[in-house]
Amino acid sequence: MSLRAWPRFVTLEGGEGAGKSTVLAALREELAARGFEAVCTREPGGTPLAERIRELLLDPRHEPPSAEAELLLMFAARAQHVRETILPALRRGAWVISDRFTDASYAYQGAARGGDPAFIAELERRAVGIVPALTLLLDVPVALGLQRARGRGAAADRIEAEREEFFERVRAGYLERARGEPRRFRTIDATQPADAVAAEALAHLRRQIEAAA
Amino acid sequence: MSLRAWPRFVTLEGGEGAGKSTVLAALREELAARGFEAVCTREPGGTPLAERIRELLLDPRHEPPSAEAELLLMFAARAQHVRETILPALRRGAWVISDRFTDASYAYQGAARGGDPAFIAELERRAVGIVPALTLLLDVPVALGLQRARGRGAAADRIEAEREEFFERVRAGYLERARGEPRRFRTIDATQPADAVAAEALAHLRRQIEAAA
Ligand SMILES: Nc1ncnc2c1ncn2[C@@H]1O[C@H](COP(=O)(O)OP(=O)(O)OP(=O)(O)O)[C@@H](O)[C@H]1O
Ligand SMILES: Nc1ncnc2c1ncn2[C@@H]1O[C@H](COP(=O)(O)OP(=O)(O)OP(=O)(O)O)[C@@H](O)[C@H]1O
Ligand SMILES: [Mg+2]
Ligand SMILES: [Mg+2]
Repeated sequence: MSLRAWPRFVTLEGGEGAGKSTVLAALREELAARGFEAVCTREPGGTPLAERIRELLLDPRHEPPSAEAELLLMFAARAQHVRETILPALRRGAWVISDRFTDASYAYQGAARGGDPAFIAELERRAVGIVPALTLLLDVPVALGLQRARGRGAAADRIEAEREEFFERVRAGYLERARGEPRRFRTIDATQPADAVAAEALAHLRRQIEAAA
Repeated sequence: MSLRAWPRFVTLEGGEGAGKSTVLAALREELAARGFEAVCTREPGGTPLAERIRELLLDPRHEPPSAEAELLLMFAARAQHVRETILPALRRGAWVISDRFTDASYAYQGAARGGDPAFIAELERRAVGIVPALTLLLDVPVALGLQRARGRGAAADRIEAEREEFFERVRAGYLERARGEPRRFRTIDATQPADAVAAEALAHLRRQIEAAA
């Protein structure tokens, strides 16, 4: 099975507090204003079963999964998300914007946690099968992202509670992915004010709307 | 990572109602009578997290996982089970008897559900890493096993609710695994009365105790 790129499939990536959820809202409005159906979703999650897997992954009160179990749970949730939510939407012509997707596993379970990227690629081919046409990487220094995320006030989940070096490896992992696939990735300097970040993201979306037409 | 065989690791395999839980109790008593520590466990399950994954897999009220999600959830649970329960027990010298293990994925997610055995083997190498020294396969015709399992009176879980052809493929898958690894597998005719099945199983265990000494 090789990976199929879908023109109307867009993903948002970046570390904690980079501004993914904020940008997602701006993209959603733009698509709605143009009369497109837009399915906005997130990972891990996006179906009832995948949201239950998310809970097992992130709730710090549970037994922590081993690195291997974490990787396989992420891909189990993703396989379900693709089959039940993303592909049905793409097949009926909707746009799909996902807050994180497979690149997050290369960054978190791969670069940061030490998982072998060749195994992650095998899981991607076998259980995911699709890639976005456009991935917006919101890049911020780790400390700034963590400060923003903590400013929101929610309690840290199991992964958010990792040490700063972990998130440095996540950031480096994302930047390496972006260098490896320069046509799909657009990296945005997310230290800018939220308006400026959203404006860049919208410009990339508009170009993708033209490309997909 | 290649697969390490542990002399004190024994697994029980077979379709629904073959008599695995019944034989497990007999093996447990034998090991206890000889003064060995015996950890008796089951799959999917065997740790608190893995038991929660079991619930997602088997509870018929949940959204059914796709074939890929089912396979990855099974291996996520197994990875956790190996790391948290099985390996610590084996490393301290205990015997471990598991009611199902990786062979069940070859039979259920592979032969019956259509999963590629090469991918299952990759998951086994990457996320499991160990094999039992002895696997007892309890073989019964599908109809007899289902009749026994239903006779116990518990409601069918999601997998037990499959059609009879599914279980024929499970049975054929197990028999093929046993033919492929004749030194590890011992196939027992489980249409015999429970006493006779237990006696055969105990004879194999005793030989394994000698071999492991
Ligand atoms: N460019 C920005 N400048 C300053 N603050 C921002 C910017 N973008 C988002 N924020 C604020 O930072 C916080 C984190 O943003 P947001 O929730 O969008 O990040 P996220 O990437 O979705 O985080 P998480 O990874 O935790 O889901 C929010 O309070 C948001 O309002
Ligand atoms: N050899 C046998 N002859 C007749 N009945 C048996 C035999 N072995 C077990 N049983 C009975 O059949 C039923 C199923 O047995 P058991 O629960 O041990 O099977 P199992 O393989 O563990 O099933 P499951 O796959 O559902 O866990 C039980 O009621 C048990 O008492
Ligand atoms: Mg967010
Ligand atoms: Mg049983």
